[in-house]
Amino acid sequence: MTTTSAEQAAAQIEAAHKAYEQSRDETPQTRAAWLEALAGGLEQHADELVGIAARETHLAEGRLRFELQRSVFQLRLFGDEVFRGENLDATIDHADPEWGMGPRPDIRRINVPLGVVGVFGASNFPFAFSVMGGDSASALAAGCAVVHKIHDGHIELGLRTGEIAAEALAAAGAPTGLFSTVSGRAAAEALVDHPLVTAIGFTGSTAGGRALFDRASRRPVPIPFYGELGSINPVFVTEEAWNRRSEEILAGYAGSFTMGMGQFCTKPGLLFAPAGSSEEIAQVLGRELAGKPMAPLLSPRLREGFDEALAGVRNAEGVDVLIDGDGAEAPSPTVLLTTSDAVREQPGLLEQEMFGPATLIIQYKPGTDLAELATLLQGQLTATVQAEPDEDLAALLTVLRERSGRVLWNAWPTGVTVTYAQQHGGPYPATTAPNTTSVGTAAIRRFMRPVAYDSFPSAQLPRALQDGNPWAIGRRVDGRWEHPAEGGN
Amino acid sequence: MTTTSAEQAAAQIEAAHKAYEQSRDETPQTRAAWLEALAGGLEQHADELVGIAARETHLAEGRLRFELQRSVFQLRLFGDEVFRGENLDATIDHADPEWGMGPRPDIRRINVPLGVVGVFGASNFPFAFSVMGGDSASALAAGCAVVHKIHDGHIELGLRTGEIAAEALAAAGAPTGLFSTVSGRAAAEALVDHPLVTAIGFTGSTAGGRALFDRASRRPVPIPFYGELGSINPVFVTEEAWNRRSEEILAGYAGSFTMGMGQFCTKPGLLFAPAGSSEEIAQVLGRELAGKPMAPLLSPRLREGFDEALAGVRNAEGVDVLIDGDGAEAPSPTVLLTTSDAVREQPGLLEQEMFGPATLIIQYKPGTDLAELATLLQGQLTATVQAEPDEDLAALLTVLRERSGRVLWNAWPTGVTVTYAQQHGGPYPATTAPNTTSVGTAAIRRFMRPVAYDSFPSAQLPRALQDGNPWAIGRRVDGRWEHPAEGGN
Repeated sequence: MTTTSAEQAAAQIEAAHKAYEQSRDETPQTRAAWLEALAGGLEQHADELVGIAARETHLAEGRLRFELQRSVFQLRLFGDEVFRGENLDATIDHADPEWGMGPRPDIRRINVPLGVVGVFGASNFPFAFSVMGGDSASALAAGCAVVHKIHDGHIELGLRTGEIAAEALAAAGAPTGLFSTVSGRAAAEALVDHPLVTAIGFTGSTAGGRALFDRASRRPVPIPFYGELGSINPVFVTEEAWNRRSEEILAGYAGSFTMGMGQFCTKPGLLFAPAGSSEEIAQVLGRELAGKPMAPLLSPRLREGFDEALAGVRNAEGVDVLIDGDGAEAPSPTVLLTTSDAVREQPGLLEQEMFGPATLIIQYKPGTDLAELATLLQGQLTATVQAEPDEDLAALLTVLRERSGRVLWNAWPTGVTVTYAQQHGGPYPATTAPNTTSVGTAAIRRFMRPVAYDSFPSAQLPRALQDGNPWAIGRRVDGRWEHPAEGGN
Repeated sequence: MTTTSAEQAAAQIEAAHKAYEQSRDETPQTRAAWLEALAGGLEQHADELVGIAARETHLAEGRLRFELQRSVFQLRLFGDEVFRGENLDATIDHADPEWGMGPRPDIRRINVPLGVVGVFGASNFPFAFSVMGGDSASALAAGCAVVHKIHDGHIELGLRTGEIAAEALAAAGAPTGLFSTVSGRAAAEALVDHPLVTAIGFTGSTAGGRALFDRASRRPVPIPFYGELGSINPVFVTEEAWNRRSEEILAGYAGSFTMGMGQFCTKPGLLFAPAGSSEEIAQVLGRELAGKPMAPLLSPRLREGFDEALAGVRNAEGVDVLIDGDGAEAPSPTVLLTTSDAVREQPGLLEQEMFGPATLIIQYKPGTDLAELATLLQGQLTATVQAEPDEDLAALLTVLRERSGRVLWNAWPTGVTVTYAQQHGGPYPATTAPNTTSVGTAAIRRFMRPVAYDSFPSAQLPRALQDGNPWAIGRRVDGRWEHPAEGGN
């Protein structure tokens, strides 16, 4: 296996810093063109890349093609956002002798890029959360340089994607070193430790992520560590919804928890449902699961972790096996069953991420206060309710909001669309930075920081803040937003 | 001295959490009314509060009155921001079957409050960065509850301000416990450690701040630590500006570095000026400093730290005393002089914060590359240039932008106005969170985090996100901003 030495990683970080310095003041147009070049490069090599990915990950080709398309779309959406200057949050307060606390000078604020960002690729999304996935795209859109640590699970894909990205950037005129890849543990540690690295984006396990978070926090100059760690993604089914459409709900659940062989960070690992006949549930789920395609898990190491977590939950007191997986190399799904009384006694049951095709149903008694039950949960990426339109669920929704980054209504959490309003994050341990997102256009801002310019003549200001708005971007001026007309830029 | 036990602090944190739960979904109108009540309470007791503050801090009454007025104004400005919903960043993406990466569901995002916030008051601003200062105001505006750790330097003022705040909130109908104060070390540690505390705001020393940052990062559930630590606030005078108006520059400098007896976090502690006659500089500064009022420093402990830091710099090799302070109880200012060659050899000279009336002038040779010289600096709250309008300072301004949160042009960094565009922050060690601000309306956001609502019927959404925009706030809808007409809410 190819690995990068600490020295080589340091050299790449220094080259990235130099490229950052050369390009940090490029126009939005240029930066958007670089993102477009990356999108085009990925598209052009789609067949080759999907082929390598399928071989390295056991993921189905259709799924991989969609994931690549998503990454390509993301680069273009971010380019459009940069072109519009949305990520800059340009704000202008003109000098005001009448300002309420005493005369104010002219103050103008803009977001600037952080510098070199280290990105750790995920095992489970070889495109969307890997080499040219969300973190790389948003950091480059922010104006940062990126050194990407390839996940061990798809080294060949990572190296090839990195080559294609570097070639695309070079052809578009970006400075050499703006994006590069490393692999192996020594390089990973160098990335977190190097003084020129200003932030880390990470998607992976809770244990590994916490160790790197601690390492980033202990630096002489601590840096933000944007880590997506573990999430169990609870689903609450109300009695009314269960009575009306339990079969439909179980069908949706079966589809969602087996997606990507249960290796989605938003996989619904817990379903809270009213007590009832377990035979009926088993029957419906059995029918729904029968048609699902199976594949080996992403890696032997991941499989080992899955087997261990699954055994821990299935052997716990009060947990029954509703549907028994076969434990084959491409394992069939396992569904476990317990009660709300059992999880009250062992709340740790709600904290076991089984990263594979397994899930736990928790049956609650009629009249149970779901909001109170939900307070047992840790931080999550998502929390879902299956309910009827007229139910008053304010209390439950508030508890779920407090514990997650995205709340869903009669939908399923797997599948995270890339949009302006998307939030993919959540309280610890779901992430180490719940006030940021790793998906959607808002992700660009986490690789930027604000700088104010005080009492500057217009000509000496960054162009985004100059009088006359030469970049024709949206700006807040003296407290009121001014947006150029549609198509005005 | 009154101190709070760890048990008592825990009880207050629990009460704050309860109050937070009771009030987290209040309307912007109600929250703005609470901020107005706090502003009114402070105004009503201004004479009493300023009297206590003057006694406890040695600060002049005029300065204290201004600082109180600033705090009152800040509460009202934040109330207005909350009323307009600006802090919510409400974003709506309607379901779109044609979305570029595949059909998207309806996704809507809003910022929600974090929960209970611990705020550590500063020694040097008994109002603006203390009990009802920026961090408390912004956390309450965000919808959080606050437990404030009173600075040991003005306990009586802290307790009285806390009483007035609690009374004002109670009279306005806010839940008991939404705001309270604690004092002493045990309570401080309890505040950082308690599981119900979700963020810390801190203004103080680099050593103390780093210790608490480490403590917050080591928690089982780490929390954001927004610490403002140390800053030296360099000023760069170009040769052209120096030739044209050195006297005017020295006068401004003298006024700025002695403000508040040099106990401002934005005090210009370094002035880079062209080499020239030190007698002339001494003469101009001597004349300017002669008229400045003097007072004892804020506390004996602070005085000790000042004396030590000053001695460290004045005894360093290559440092001369240009103007010798008298070391009296109310010490007259000290101005030290060195060369850019000396600081190149001992860059540590640029990292000594002398928190009192002392500053260091660094003379550079004609033709020196100021941008290159500026790379010796650590992270700063502010960086200033004194220059002529037509000079090309792009390189220097970029280096200063990289190292600070606010860059000034022909102005002085002391005095930080509270506006929409203000940024009071900066790279470590100036702060532990350079992507946030502790001053200005943007500060409200650091006590919030985004939550997305996926596929919700309008009636089940938070009101800020419902169809029809019942709160009449600015929202981004399908990528385009929509702002209600002026006065429309």
